[in-house]
Amino acid sequence: MSQTYVHGYHARENERLQDQAGTLVDLLHSDTAYPAGSTVLEVGCGVGAQTVTLAGRSPDARFTSVDISAHSLAEAKRRADRAGLTNVEFQLANIFELPFTAESFDHVFVCFVLEHLSRPLEALAILKNQLKVGGTITVIEGDHGSAYFHPDSAAARAAIDCLVEMQRRAGGNALIGRELYPLMIGSGFDAVRVSPRVVYVDSSRPDLVDGFTRKTFTAMVEGVRESAVVAGLIEPQNFDEGIHDLYRTTEMDGVFCYTFFKAVGEKKPG
Amino acid sequence: MSQTYVHGYHARENERLQDQAGTLVDLLHSDTAYPAGSTVLEVGCGVGAQTVTLAGRSPDARFTSVDISAHSLAEAKRRADRAGLTNVEFQLANIFELPFTAESFDHVFVCFVLEHLSRPLEALAILKNQLKVGGTITVIEGDHGSAYFHPDSAAARAAIDCLVEMQRRAGGNALIGRELYPLMIGSGFDAVRVSPRVVYVDSSRPDLVDGFTRKTFTAMVEGVRESAVVAGLIEPQNFDEGIHDLYRTTEMDGVFCYTFFKAVGEKKPG
Repeated sequence: MSQTYVHGYHARENERLQDQAGTLVDLLHSDTAYPAGSTVLEVGCGVGAQTVTLAGRSPDARFTSVDISAHSLAEAKRRADRAGLTNVEFQLANIFELPFTAESFDHVFVCFVLEHLSRPLEALAILKNQLKVGGTITVIEGDHGSAYFHPDSAAARAAIDCLVEMQRRAGGNALIGRELYPLMIGSGFDAVRVSPRVVYVDSSRPDLVDGFTRKTFTAMVEGVRESAVVAGLIEPQNFDEGIHDLYRTTEMDGVFCYTFFKAVGEKKPG
Repeated sequence: MSQTYVHGYHARENERLQDQAGTLVDLLHSDTAYPAGSTVLEVGCGVGAQTVTLAGRSPDARFTSVDISAHSLAEAKRRADRAGLTNVEFQLANIFELPFTAESFDHVFVCFVLEHLSRPLEALAILKNQLKVGGTITVIEGDHGSAYFHPDSAAARAAIDCLVEMQRRAGGNALIGRELYPLMIGSGFDAVRVSPRVVYVDSSRPDLVDGFTRKTFTAMVEGVRESAVVAGLIEPQNFDEGIHDLYRTTEMDGVFCYTFFKAVGEKKPG
């Protein structure tokens, strides 16, 4: 969900959204910090939404942030400059053809990337190869199947399923969050620990109601309306009913839940 | 899910299960403690699974634990005695006909009870009436719609849906966890805060694989096999396939997630 996620938070100046983004940033990143002098490879940095947080929280580590899109990298570089960061180098690269020698990084960081790849196990094996022995990898992904809400709605679930199916047809996996443990183990990482990070939203948390339920998650589902209808996955009126019902969860008596997963693994000798 | 939940943890001597139960007890109860001298009403204490934890953690508070079943109360009393607790009185009572005067307790505690009631709002209003002004209520409930897993399985989801439907036909609501916020607000509590408590299970946590995924959740779903088949909700072979697929999530590459919700509210003046 990287693109919509990114745009949901960072293309706006609204102070409330900044506060809410702060809440989510803490939820996902507060337990990630890299020691002084260590080198960190960030793969799939996109427009730098995570980069600014990561590098800002570990000012004495050196980051190499790569992405497959020159356009995104240019925006990421602007953001890093605006944030006054001097510990990040940006580089154009494909995760499956990284231009670095083996075992050249102390740590690897990947956020909202594996969900888009048809070969996530292979990608993780490549990233393991980039790590020095004793290094760590941190992976963060969402899971659209973790979304549930009050009032419940079959139409809303059907609209979300369209997003999952469209991402599947594009070669990705919108339910990858729950799979991080077997993926990490399957690619040979040790000491793997996965922790869920729940975004729980009720009307006592208006920043999340607006910033997460409305402008991130529901907006993201809305984004597949045309393609899902053209693909014959759903009737337009059913999809629209689902979107209506997702917005319904943002009323005073509504509740919305979504879970991100964060996995950390180590590269052991041998 | 109180009955199966209770029996899943406490009818066994197995040390690993005790450890795992400890993990869940911490997850649900570690942030609940009552001041010395305060009076606490526990409604629907069942066989005392929560009572022992609650009263043990607040040894200088006085608990009144009520249940509708004399049989359960007798077992609860045995457990409290075995735990050496002297700060609990047990009393036979129906939540809708409580034998106490209004505003006679400092705090109220309700765990795995509202899910079984057809009138949870009314129950909460009655409990609010039992509270002194300035007192708190703590409510804990599960939500079977929060269960998701890897490998995903439509048959497993269908079997879980049978449990949800059977509970609905019995007048309850197995999806009540996500509704705690509107229920608490709707019954007039103030300063309501709801927090999700995720039980995340992968094979690095064998105690939870055995104690939660296998012996609590899947066993609970299995428990409705006959009634769901008789009710015509599902074909027996489909149900059995779903159970098989739930057990499949306990293998080395499997993952299982479930979320409990804990709500705390206050009774303000007026």
